[in-house]
Amino acid sequence: MKQQSVSDRLKKVPASPFRKFVPLSQAAKKDGVKVYHLNIGDPDIKTPAVMLEVLTHWERNPISYSLSQGEPSFLTALHGYYRSLGFSFLEENHIQVTTGGSEAISMALFATCNPGDEVLVFEPFYANYNSYAVVNGVSFVSVLTELSNGFHLPDRSTIEKTITSKTKAIMICTPNNPTGTVYTEEEMQMLVSIAKDHGLFLISDEVYREFCYDALKQVSLFSFMQEIPKLAIVVDSLSKRYSLCGARLGCLVSLNPEIMSGVLYIAQGRLSSGLIDQVMASKLSDVPASYTEGVRQEYETRRNVLFEELSKIDGIALPPKPEGAFYMIVGLPVADADDFCRYLLTDFRDKNETVMITPATGFYATPGRGKNEVRIAYVLNADSIKRSVEILNKALMSYRAK
Amino acid sequence: MKQQSVSDRLKKVPASPFRKFVPLSQAAKKDGVKVYHLNIGDPDIKTPAVMLEVLTHWERNPISYSLSQGEPSFLTALHGYYRSLGFSFLEENHIQVTTGGSEAISMALFATCNPGDEVLVFEPFYANYNSYAVVNGVSFVSVLTELSNGFHLPDRSTIEKTITSKTKAIMICTPNNPTGTVYTEEEMQMLVSIAKDHGLFLISDEVYREFCYDALKQVSLFSFMQEIPKLAIVVDSLSKRYSLCGARLGCLVSLNPEIMSGVLYIAQGRLSSGLIDQVMASKLSDVPASYTEGVRQEYETRRNVLFEELSKIDGIALPPKPEGAFYMIVGLPVADADDFCRYLLTDFRDKNETVMITPATGFYATPGRGKNEVRIAYVLNADSIKRSVEILNKALMSYRAK
Repeated sequence: MKQQSVSDRLKKVPASPFRKFVPLSQAAKKDGVKVYHLNIGDPDIKTPAVMLEVLTHWERNPISYSLSQGEPSFLTALHGYYRSLGFSFLEENHIQVTTGGSEAISMALFATCNPGDEVLVFEPFYANYNSYAVVNGVSFVSVLTELSNGFHLPDRSTIEKTITSKTKAIMICTPNNPTGTVYTEEEMQMLVSIAKDHGLFLISDEVYREFCYDALKQVSLFSFMQEIPKLAIVVDSLSKRYSLCGARLGCLVSLNPEIMSGVLYIAQGRLSSGLIDQVMASKLSDVPASYTEGVRQEYETRRNVLFEELSKIDGIALPPKPEGAFYMIVGLPVADADDFCRYLLTDFRDKNETVMITPATGFYATPGRGKNEVRIAYVLNADSIKRSVEILNKALMSYRAK
Repeated sequence: MKQQSVSDRLKKVPASPFRKFVPLSQAAKKDGVKVYHLNIGDPDIKTPAVMLEVLTHWERNPISYSLSQGEPSFLTALHGYYRSLGFSFLEENHIQVTTGGSEAISMALFATCNPGDEVLVFEPFYANYNSYAVVNGVSFVSVLTELSNGFHLPDRSTIEKTITSKTKAIMICTPNNPTGTVYTEEEMQMLVSIAKDHGLFLISDEVYREFCYDALKQVSLFSFMQEIPKLAIVVDSLSKRYSLCGARLGCLVSLNPEIMSGVLYIAQGRLSSGLIDQVMASKLSDVPASYTEGVRQEYETRRNVLFEELSKIDGIALPPKPEGAFYMIVGLPVADADDFCRYLLTDFRDKNETVMITPATGFYATPGRGKNEVRIAYVLNADSIKRSVEILNKALMSYRAK
């Protein structure tokens, strides 16, 4: 038999840094160990009751395809949501429903880049972007941001220096995963201006739009969309906003008709997003404002607790207090955070409990960067966070004493 | 402002031939016209009650991510299903849950081919394969099959002639969409032998496994999987088997560990398939055999009715009675089936009713092929099929008299 190898590109798809240790955490749990999951943005907040009632009152049968652009009631609800934010220039045909924000990002990269083209990203960035880059044959060129100034953007010339003839797009995330940074009005204006002057697409991942703290408000790319109608693409997801991670629903929004008809054709190829998830999520218009505000407040409390508790740990490098989302990148007093994260799952136990956090190297494109950093997702309640940091502190002492 | 164009590849993504006329059918319906949908494989058969009860009894909250490989209960159910078919060599780690069969096909192309590599397909083929080819940068090289012999395979040398140094895989679908052909034991053995001798992956889309008529049984690639463990990939979907089109669930199955770890990494990138859909579909092990057999019989009846009614139409080119799935490719006495399909939606009405069918050109890669052919999906009950063919016949007469 002749041999055939898998494709070279398959070998390049990276493991997810927040999923690669799942077998280790499963093994720990099998041994009866309690694991505090601060590794993944999978919140413990309840999904709105009005959505779950769609399930318990389900009558549609059979479970047939939805439309490729999106289930009409869901499109209408999304459109209403964006209008309620003040972006009344948007029409339903500017919205493509996607199977999670993941699909929206992948579609955006495919739509803007040919194979081999470059996308400018700010490092550290959401690790799964690396998968979408490989899947879409796109290269990331990254501009470094620093823990010391809360991962805010460097000046314009530093950014422009990385633009080449192959650069087709800039991709940002605000509020940011993994850093929690919320870009200011000035930063957003600078990015729009760079996009405009260099003819680059500007892709903004705004999954954490409502998760801003200390009375800060997110500055959305939507505010600039009419200024660069051909270039602006917003990707969004319902996962965090309504605790719907398992519902796999997001959308891609653009005023560029060529983008919208192209992504619709991609969407037709995969037929539709899930019908049940979409019908359920159509109820987003009935979710009271108090739900979203309550969730926001809860995360603000958690951030405060996490930040305060972490600041008591000896030798830890903390950024300024993160402004949004529910992640924090911190430097640990270890040489290899990857090894330490593994140690937490395989070796360390405190009263038969341990913590799962994510090594930060996967959020960097530059080799060697973030080697002593971890990403902590504050997706558990304040008590669990306190206990988690206590475990983390004990583990650090025990690990360093090895 | 500098201009930036969308990517060249975005422009190449084809519209879905069975979805591109949706705006026309929606317009007709808005005018109060009843449209018989024979354009898409979206069955009217009820989803098993035992699955829908999962929804009405739903308690999990929040709707959190599932695991990337698949929800454990769903993986177990799939594994049990394949074992019940006699393929007891399969383990759960040979199965990757996918968001629809669509994702499984896309993953298979990505995993086996580098950009520019070729995949051998038999023409006509499932039109959406064209989207996955563009999205994955793969070229299709097609071997023609003929209506006159029921679209069965040509001889080995004809197939081998199309293999080049760039060919990495052969992709088949049995029972076939769009032709209804079920490959024989000999045909499957020949494909396995070609794959083996030329070191090609063999990707088998077996979404319609149970839909075989006249006491025929599908010959699955699973029967040969241990003979070519590195090369065989089965893609599957629950959409048709359990009338779950809107649940977006399928899987990719292979014994090749490199394939399985690679597609798991892709899956980690998009986090997980839908939780609710998977928990619901886990009940497949409780679906009685009578359900599947009832569905099979219903489609056999529909095929018989459709075939008999079509054979009364003057000038129609019918293949031998299709052996499986729920599609038929037929030649119509028109020069341009695309134009005729459009005419059905925009102009023709009989008692304010019309029919939606799919022009066949989208199922061919060779330009000009299938220009007078259409695909008819027999997804409605016998009475509706009779009425649809009556409308079709009248429309043909009226169209030809124009």
